[in-house]
Amino acid sequence: MGLSRIGVIFFLLPCAFYCIPPHDEAAKVARFVAHKCDWASMSTISTHDPVKGQPFANVFSVSDGPKGKGTGVPYMYLTAMEISVQDLQVNPTASLAMSLAQTKYCKKHSYDPQSPLCVHIILSGSVVKVNDTEASFAKQSLFSRHPEMVDWPSDHGWFFAKMNITQVWVLDYFGGIKTVTPEQYFSAEPFSTTTDFE
Amino acid sequence: MGLSRIGVIFFLLPCAFYCIPPHDEAAKVARFVAHKCDWASMSTISTHDPVKGQPFANVFSVSDGPKGKGTGVPYMYLTAMEISVQDLQVNPTASLAMSLAQTKYCKKHSYDPQSPLCVHIILSGSVVKVNDTEASFAKQSLFSRHPEMVDWPSDHGWFFAKMNITQVWVLDYFGGIKTVTPEQYFSAEPFSTTTDFE
Repeated sequence: MGLSRIGVIFFLLPCAFYCIPPHDEAAKVARFVAHKCDWASMSTISTHDPVKGQPFANVFSVSDGPKGKGTGVPYMYLTAMEISVQDLQVNPTASLAMSLAQTKYCKKHSYDPQSPLCVHIILSGSVVKVNDTEASFAKQSLFSRHPEMVDWPSDHGWFFAKMNITQVWVLDYFGGIKTVTPEQYFSAEPFSTTTDFE
Repeated sequence: MGLSRIGVIFFLLPCAFYCIPPHDEAAKVARFVAHKCDWASMSTISTHDPVKGQPFANVFSVSDGPKGKGTGVPYMYLTAMEISVQDLQVNPTASLAMSLAQTKYCKKHSYDPQSPLCVHIILSGSVVKVNDTEASFAKQSLFSRHPEMVDWPSDHGWFFAKMNITQVWVLDYFGGIKTVTPEQYFSAEPFSTTTDFE
């Protein structure tokens, strides 16, 4: 093998590990972003005065699996003391927005946060408590990426939850928002993300 | 003036320019975060199948004024081609979440994005088109911090909008979420933020 061929392989290889999937593979892109982002903005319908019935945005740490082992399922560590979680107890439908603006990616490429090139995804669905079997994986997923969680106040009644996804929306290129079904999303093989670009 | 006194002044001075206001001054904290953040997650009530009536999160670039000249009013540059803007045309009530997780601050201090120490705020209100008089300041505010906007496709019908804030929520310390009225928010004198910590 000539040196030039080795050069080409080394030039191409890194993208197998950390580059964003091609924009015509929206399901893969969604899985990539869902794994890259450590937090999300969650939208709920508020149950609190003076904004009862209005949409309410808030910030939550998420993890879809330990680094390099993303499942696509956004896990969260919640307490009923939290204002948005109280909304979910009345109406569990919610939406999670995650953007590569949360990483170094968009700044590095000078992509404005609102540009579709600064890739962002939206997950729609319901947020539910996970059962005991799944709680172990949820814990591993969250605590490995949010080590501070282990020390959160024990009297707050923390529990593990996840979003049951009903629809995925992807903004990763010009031409409008794309939709991805949960089936397409979960069957997509995300690129390995062992190398960080946060 | 002795050297020690000069030392004390230099030790204290930087905080006048870039430190977060004290957590017992929630209105100031809110103004600080609203100025620091270049983008926000906006929550709307969706008008789109299959999530009609459900909360919907999305990402938008914002600016409350040119750097160092924050007004507290989040301005946005919108087009009716956008899915969340279509929601606003039916129901303009919305919520904007902004977090210092969007800056280097939380990582630098090892604050988890969900921790109240990783300061985040939520603005509730209605998103409306600004009038011609205000459009000039909205443009200056947005284009100075989002230079890419000037080149966005002219056939998209972009317009300047703002949130009319009805309630401010602040998570900046332990002890639960704090509320700030629009009056408190707009009368708060934010710290000067000429030095970046993005």
